Amino acid sequence: MDGVSNIRYRETVKEIAERLLNSSGVIVSSHIEPDGDSIGCMVAMWRALRAKGINSYLIWEGEIPNRLKFVIENCEITKEEPRDYDTAIVLDSGDLNRLQPAFRNMLKNCRVVINIDHHKSNSMFGDINLVDVESSSAAEMALDLIEELGVELSFDIALPLYVGLITDTGNFSYANTNRKSHLTAIRLISVGVDPYIIHKVLNENKDIKFILLLGDALKSIKLKMGGKIAVIRITSKMLDDNKFDPREVNGFIEYARAVKGIDVAVLLREEDNKVKVSMRSKGKVDVNKIAMALGGGGHEKAAGCEVEGDIDSVERTILNHLEELMGSYK
Amino acid sequence: MDGVSNIRYRETVKEIAERLLNSSGVIVSSHIEPDGDSIGCMVAMWRALRAKGINSYLIWEGEIPNRLKFVIENCEITKEEPRDYDTAIVLDSGDLNRLQPAFRNMLKNCRVVINIDHHKSNSMFGDINLVDVESSSAAEMALDLIEELGVELSFDIALPLYVGLITDTGNFSYANTNRKSHLTAIRLISVGVDPYIIHKVLNENKDIKFILLLGDALKSIKLKMGGKIAVIRITSKMLDDNKFDPREVNGFIEYARAVKGIDVAVLLREEDNKVKVSMRSKGKVDVNKIAMALGGGGHEKAAGCEVEGDIDSVERTILNHLEELMGSYK
Repeated sequence: MDGVSNIRYRETVKEIAERLLNSSGVIVSSHIEPDGDSIGCMVAMWRALRAKGINSYLIWEGEIPNRLKFVIENCEITKEEPRDYDTAIVLDSGDLNRLQPAFRNMLKNCRVVINIDHHKSNSMFGDINLVDVESSSAAEMALDLIEELGVELSFDIALPLYVGLITDTGNFSYANTNRKSHLTAIRLISVGVDPYIIHKVLNENKDIKFILLLGDALKSIKLKMGGKIAVIRITSKMLDDNKFDPREVNGFIEYARAVKGIDVAVLLREEDNKVKVSMRSKGKVDVNKIAMALGGGGHEKAAGCEVEGDIDSVERTILNHLEELMGSYK
Repeated sequence: MDGVSNIRYRETVKEIAERLLNSSGVIVSSHIEPDGDSIGCMVAMWRALRAKGINSYLIWEGEIPNRLKFVIENCEITKEEPRDYDTAIVLDSGDLNRLQPAFRNMLKNCRVVINIDHHKSNSMFGDINLVDVESSSAAEMALDLIEELGVELSFDIALPLYVGLITDTGNFSYANTNRKSHLTAIRLISVGVDPYIIHKVLNENKDIKFILLLGDALKSIKLKMGGKIAVIRITSKMLDDNKFDPREVNGFIEYARAVKGIDVAVLLREEDNKVKVSMRSKGKVDVNKIAMALGGGGHEKAAGCEVEGDIDSVERTILNHLEELMGSYK
């Protein structure tokens, strides 16, 4: 952040803290299809408000991926509309459509909607918008607010924030990793968060069937268009054989992404009569264009869609789109 | 580090800097079977000494794994004995047996041998020993010395140090990750090191055959002893099919390590009439005992050995040893 943005950021954090301290009750939530950052900063913020004696509710009714369930353990989750609230904190969410309908309805009863996010695409839906695209995670921003509130940083608040930080930065390896990410880590480690234990809980509790499924998926990898595209396929049969929550396999696309010299990585996953498509661009190909043309979305470097049909025909469709798009860049 | 250790550490760093500034020439090297940290801190230290106008030589004649070759690019590597030197810096090396013979011989002609390392097992072979087991990497320690020398931290010095830092901490996720690791990262990022570019260079330049080989290896995974042991096998055929430098596949053991509930992960790799065995312990089993009994070594949690015989018989040998050892813990 430059100096001016930094001053504005700090002022907004202060303003949010004041509003929270003067609220009658706060509802806290985040986006559907939750990830480590959305769950982490939602849990931490709810705990911090409680620690400060602010009447607050963690609103959640969707599912939580297995590997992240430990983050939300021991939280009091509110599904019904609370009686007393006038303020909402929406974390890590680009727009209102990404929220659970029940929570979205509650926003109408709020005097103040606080929008805390780091996505470039944020639609600025809040009454107060703290949107900082240079923060690697919403967790980093939540920590700033928690400290501004004067809440003592406890292990129970730091742990979910750390999960948010490392999942959104890929353990400090993605392009968004910066000085602030590392400073945040230091603050969280200082109250007892153990990087190795979190790493083990997140990554070392695999069913052996998961490893076998990954083996199957990797064996399916193929290069297309003269090595410019790598495709990995996960068939229903592979998933059925191993009884997997399909959401757990989305990370497999990283293996296609790791192939030398490719421009685009594609993961195809069969589900009923549809195929879920994930795409990652390493170069100038805007994969969001293809996702949007097929009714999906995302952003330039990472996008996805669901296409009806069998896996072979969907693969052809995607490759045709890619061929056309990549031709247009020549 | 506690206060006293920290003062002693700082004093030793100062003493080393003084000796270097008063040397006629410095030879710099690290251990055989090089990893990111050994190569990284060796290159950085050599560049820093040169930048300070100290006559110095990077002594190396062994191979460098493909994925790490970029770290040593544009370095002037000395294979012959230099004419003018009286001081040696040995980095990241637990004992003299881990050095290349030619370099080890040169140590005899040095007035001062400086030993900079972070391994608990270090034999204190130097005239000055800077051994700090709380540093996650020798790179962290090398940076302290480079700053004490008053060398301006350039990108060319920071990059190899960053490679050392992230390879030895597993991107800030291993048990050795601490406040100092993150502070070091911040210092290195501040002169232009880009975490994402390094991540890409290290992890995203895979031949597709590598991904297929990983698929083959993962499909071989088996649980033994009621799920307490996970074994992955890499046969010569798998390697021949894909023409791989076998050193590149050592990381496959992490997939066995990730299986829920196991105590020990084992990787077996056929090579000629031998089998290379790697073992990782997640619990109380001291795998070094088995490695040592079979002529290898390592430490409690990670050890290895080479055993003659075919892969089936070697697997049986290892499992017998594990069964006995694990029985003894009951």
